Amino acid sequence: MTKFIWISMFVSALAFAYAVWLNAWVRGLPSSNPRIAQVGGWIREGASTFLRREYAVLAKFAGVVSVVIFLFLPQPIWSGIAAANLRMALAYLAGTAFSGVAGVIGMRVATIANVKTAEAALKGIKPSFMAGFRGGAVMGMAVVGSTLLGVSLVMLITNETSTLLGFSFGASSLALFAKAGGGIFTKTADVSADLVGKVELGIPEDDPRNPAVIADNVGDNVGDVAGMGADLFDSNVASMSAALVLASALDRATGGSVNQAVVFCYAAAGLLASIIGVMMARMGKRGPTVALNNSTYITTGVYAALTGILTGVFDFSWRIWGACMVGLAVGVIIGIASDYFTDDSKPPVRKVAKASATGPAFTILSGIAYGFISSLPSLVGIAVSSLLAYNLCAPLGEGYAMFGIAMAAVGMLSIVGMIISNDAYGPIVDNARGLAEMGRLGEDVLAITDQLDSAGNTVKAVTKGFAIGAAGLTVIALLGAFVSEVNSKAAELIAQGVQGVQQITNGFNIMNPVVFFGMLVGAAVPAVFSAMLILGVDRNAQRMVGEIHRQFRNIKGLKEGRPGVVPEYDKCIEIATSGALRELIPAGLFTILVTLAVGFIGGVQAIGGFLTGNIVTGLLLALFMSNSGGLWDNAKKYVESGHEGGKGSDAHKAAVVGDTVGDPFKDTAGPSINTQITVVSLISSLAATLFLTSSVFK
Amino acid sequence: MTKFIWISMFVSALAFAYAVWLNAWVRGLPSSNPRIAQVGGWIREGASTFLRREYAVLAKFAGVVSVVIFLFLPQPIWSGIAAANLRMALAYLAGTAFSGVAGVIGMRVATIANVKTAEAALKGIKPSFMAGFRGGAVMGMAVVGSTLLGVSLVMLITNETSTLLGFSFGASSLALFAKAGGGIFTKTADVSADLVGKVELGIPEDDPRNPAVIADNVGDNVGDVAGMGADLFDSNVASMSAALVLASALDRATGGSVNQAVVFCYAAAGLLASIIGVMMARMGKRGPTVALNNSTYITTGVYAALTGILTGVFDFSWRIWGACMVGLAVGVIIGIASDYFTDDSKPPVRKVAKASATGPAFTILSGIAYGFISSLPSLVGIAVSSLLAYNLCAPLGEGYAMFGIAMAAVGMLSIVGMIISNDAYGPIVDNARGLAEMGRLGEDVLAITDQLDSAGNTVKAVTKGFAIGAAGLTVIALLGAFVSEVNSKAAELIAQGVQGVQQITNGFNIMNPVVFFGMLVGAAVPAVFSAMLILGVDRNAQRMVGEIHRQFRNIKGLKEGRPGVVPEYDKCIEIATSGALRELIPAGLFTILVTLAVGFIGGVQAIGGFLTGNIVTGLLLALFMSNSGGLWDNAKKYVESGHEGGKGSDAHKAAVVGDTVGDPFKDTAGPSINTQITVVSLISSLAATLFLTSSVFK
Repeated sequence: MTKFIWISMFVSALAFAYAVWLNAWVRGLPSSNPRIAQVGGWIREGASTFLRREYAVLAKFAGVVSVVIFLFLPQPIWSGIAAANLRMALAYLAGTAFSGVAGVIGMRVATIANVKTAEAALKGIKPSFMAGFRGGAVMGMAVVGSTLLGVSLVMLITNETSTLLGFSFGASSLALFAKAGGGIFTKTADVSADLVGKVELGIPEDDPRNPAVIADNVGDNVGDVAGMGADLFDSNVASMSAALVLASALDRATGGSVNQAVVFCYAAAGLLASIIGVMMARMGKRGPTVALNNSTYITTGVYAALTGILTGVFDFSWRIWGACMVGLAVGVIIGIASDYFTDDSKPPVRKVAKASATGPAFTILSGIAYGFISSLPSLVGIAVSSLLAYNLCAPLGEGYAMFGIAMAAVGMLSIVGMIISNDAYGPIVDNARGLAEMGRLGEDVLAITDQLDSAGNTVKAVTKGFAIGAAGLTVIALLGAFVSEVNSKAAELIAQGVQGVQQITNGFNIMNPVVFFGMLVGAAVPAVFSAMLILGVDRNAQRMVGEIHRQFRNIKGLKEGRPGVVPEYDKCIEIATSGALRELIPAGLFTILVTLAVGFIGGVQAIGGFLTGNIVTGLLLALFMSNSGGLWDNAKKYVESGHEGGKGSDAHKAAVVGDTVGDPFKDTAGPSINTQITVVSLISSLAATLFLTSSVFK
Repeated sequence: MTKFIWISMFVSALAFAYAVWLNAWVRGLPSSNPRIAQVGGWIREGASTFLRREYAVLAKFAGVVSVVIFLFLPQPIWSGIAAANLRMALAYLAGTAFSGVAGVIGMRVATIANVKTAEAALKGIKPSFMAGFRGGAVMGMAVVGSTLLGVSLVMLITNETSTLLGFSFGASSLALFAKAGGGIFTKTADVSADLVGKVELGIPEDDPRNPAVIADNVGDNVGDVAGMGADLFDSNVASMSAALVLASALDRATGGSVNQAVVFCYAAAGLLASIIGVMMARMGKRGPTVALNNSTYITTGVYAALTGILTGVFDFSWRIWGACMVGLAVGVIIGIASDYFTDDSKPPVRKVAKASATGPAFTILSGIAYGFISSLPSLVGIAVSSLLAYNLCAPLGEGYAMFGIAMAAVGMLSIVGMIISNDAYGPIVDNARGLAEMGRLGEDVLAITDQLDSAGNTVKAVTKGFAIGAAGLTVIALLGAFVSEVNSKAAELIAQGVQGVQQITNGFNIMNPVVFFGMLVGAAVPAVFSAMLILGVDRNAQRMVGEIHRQFRNIKGLKEGRPGVVPEYDKCIEIATSGALRELIPAGLFTILVTLAVGFIGGVQAIGGFLTGNIVTGLLLALFMSNSGGLWDNAKKYVESGHEGGKGSDAHKAAVVGDTVGDPFKDTAGPSINTQITVVSLISSLAATLFLTSSVFK
């Protein structure tokens, strides 16, 4: 296995080298417009300030948690081995640090690439596309490189999968707060800017008179770049960790290390495929959307071929390769389903746009309805793929079936380097559009940046579906990892002579009321968690709307756009920042505390039910919120492009209400649910020993 | 046991006798105002027409289903006993007939009581309250009397719990469509009338100029009276059936019949307690809300005392009585939680009202958020109560634990006679308010009917929480009944020498991917089902809004209210009727077909997961929709009473959007989900033999 760890580290070094090259390439592009440079500087500064303050809060939080981990995990320090607790605490801190660094790198380059992309649009769409795409690719390479490097280092140094789960928990807990904080920031600014600017005053998007316009652009960077980077880093690490936990249990049984080797091998191949995919990305005649999708298909194809060859060369099992391919395929299927419900050439968006003509209530009702329906194909897809992966690998022996599901998740997430590149491209070109507007680069340039922006929105639906699908398979695998962890800890405790400890021999029986109890409580958690985030955005946006109103009232000449009159952008950034920092902790803490409460009441059986309930409603709500949010966004754009009365019509006003409701759905609550499920799964595995020994029910 | 069946039939005869007396009392009240009589006649006629046409569609449906049942259930007629299939088909038809009759009785008296209540308001609030309450009580007595009579007859004639499940399935399948059809009718009319009347034209609620106003009042009767009656008849029968299936399995093992006797005894006691509660209802100085709640508390107290005494007299187990009391207690807790989230003196409603001042998007976002949060206490309540009931009865022996949960559901539903009386009171006084407005009875009378109406809305939140909680426990018990059915059928098949049939020995293991597959698919069903109903209302309301616009445009003098100019009320009733009939079948059929598909693919194990996923997300969504809908309704009323700018303000417009979104949530989709879960559970039990023998996976 060690050989494959070194290969993985080598590939991650390649990714970093490529990221450095891409970064230099982006920075080397010209920037001459002083107005754009000035506004770009404000955005960069705002984003840096927010991240600095956010990480200051999170560093304190991580500090406290690491002390708690040192004292209690994997078991109370007075009853276990202090060195194990120290390893766990350090791994946790390393996980948070890796996650934070990946976020900062992505944000840094994104806030440079936006300026370069806007500027490059003066030369045409192709150079502009390349600037945006390569800026995003730095983030992609950094995140996946860090994943592979981090996991490799932990395994190389400790060779302990429990410690790896600690590392993964560090990544997840940071992601939970980064995603929530960034999501609240970005939507506070976006919603408030739109509400006062577009709806009340009828001024265009990104108009420099709007006091919230810089905060809105900052939000794209801290929410969609840094937050999303932390999120996918977390999923990626979690899927590898789950696979390695199961693999090491299988390897322990046979005395080899082939299963762990497979995990590293396939993950490294995925990163290599992503590098190739990014390198091949070029915009042809068929526009930016096709260019983005083509690079994804190339990556997918290269990955399938590469892993096929490696499977042959190293004589791995073809069944495991098959499970990996099932994951890849279902990722594409979920992406297509998401696309159907959010594409403006398909019936759902058009029907919601049509319903808007009758009033905002119908925009909301029909959007919610299609959002609910959109969950069906994805849930069935996840269900069928896990059934297939399971049955494909079951003949390999006991325990391989669940490993198959984990490998499907690894397969799905392997091409994540490419997915992140596409995803980070979105906020960069969105920012570039704003800069072009504020820098008054003219209608031609705006047309180009609009086209790039629209491509970003289209591929976003696909990548989001992909991320949720991957999270779905990952958390099923983490459930398997939890059982594996419980059983290995229970075996240790029994060997130590602790009484009354029971292994999980027959999984979790739904008819056991302790399991059912956990399941009902677990089902409520994603709903309450997302509600807390939505209320956070709601409260914060109300504060910011008040501030924008105040500025338009008090600053003379602002509304009329008198030359030289500039709004106080920093006040809005400050409100978004302090509000986000205030709102980000409670929801995450609630999740963690409920998990511990259920574990200490009902023990590992209740936790089995709890995780299941959490997965089931979490996936449902994440799909519902992402898809309905995307649908409303595109319905609004469809109306704005001249349908159902076009801009300024009643249908447009109703569609804007839908979009405003959808914003925190799709960019705050929805994507945070993935992370919430992962955190809950990991904390359960880490606290397995405590739940085994100290619960009220067994 | 036979003794207790006869006692039950005697008590149900008492209930019918009391219903006849109440009915005569209501009909004996004076009605003199010709205008009210005329409008009341239109409402009665509209409601009768709708029910006639609805039942004509449903009769065809039931006819087809009964033939299918005769051919295939409990097993294909060519491989089983034809007499058993005939019994099942007849029991199914009897279930649909009982349900239909209960609905018609309730609707008939409600459309008389509304006129009497309006008229009685001329004499004061007390006589008016009594007219509304006693009108509702006829429905309560009829529904619970029919339940007890129907279940008693089936058990007396066949003494077969499988056949009883067929009867229950008949009740459920009719309720599914009656609830969906009535819900679509009522909300189509309500939403359209409000949208054009209140929002666009600014005319008062129930203004006779509004072409949809009669349809709106008809809707109250067909949706909230007939639909709700069918719904609670269904829950009540299902809870008794689940308990009797489990009881008869326990009794078979011991050779006695004591457990079945307990079920009948407690159910009869509940009906007796409800009769006493209804008899004691008087309005004192503290207003109608207190009067309604007091009768509920009296019923609860009488029930607890009565069952306690009976338990001592007949030497039943105190543990089973305890489980029954746990159910009763959790019903009250869920009611209180629902009340907190929907009462306008509590923070959630006030915060949503405040958010409305910022625009409709914030009304929606905050309402959705509180709706999600509101699910937590109820889900925890159901989880804890099932855990308690289980552990309370587990010491009685194997199988008693699940019977304990079933008895908790019976306990919760026993006082349903009282609950229905309170619930049916709502639409009657709502109608009376409309009649008072249209009959121009003056401001004093309107003030009285407003007060009665508001009391109806307040207790509605509590009774709805109660209904969902009861459904939650019932479906858990039905899951137990499903296992019991499968095992008894499997034993029969094994005895017949059929190969490859497996009993469910260890429940359903979540780690089994077939179970997990079923669970993910089951989780999507309530979401898709409710989405289909919401889209039905959405489409239908758009049609009706078009018609109302047409009338205001084409009928000269209508908008100005010129004397003698009357809108074409019947056109709106026709649209609501034909739309509801068109939309009611697909959602129900979807549910049934998915269940069969999962069963034939994954067998009984997949069905176990399917039912679980269905219960989990079904309860979550039902609670979310009912509570957020109630919250929006009351937030609107709170604003209308002069807060946040009062009527006509921007906050009011936003609050109306919230109310319009909430209407189909709380009166169409939310309450139908209960029935959907019950139908799915029952069909699974009925088709157990087919799933055992003919599934792809076992």
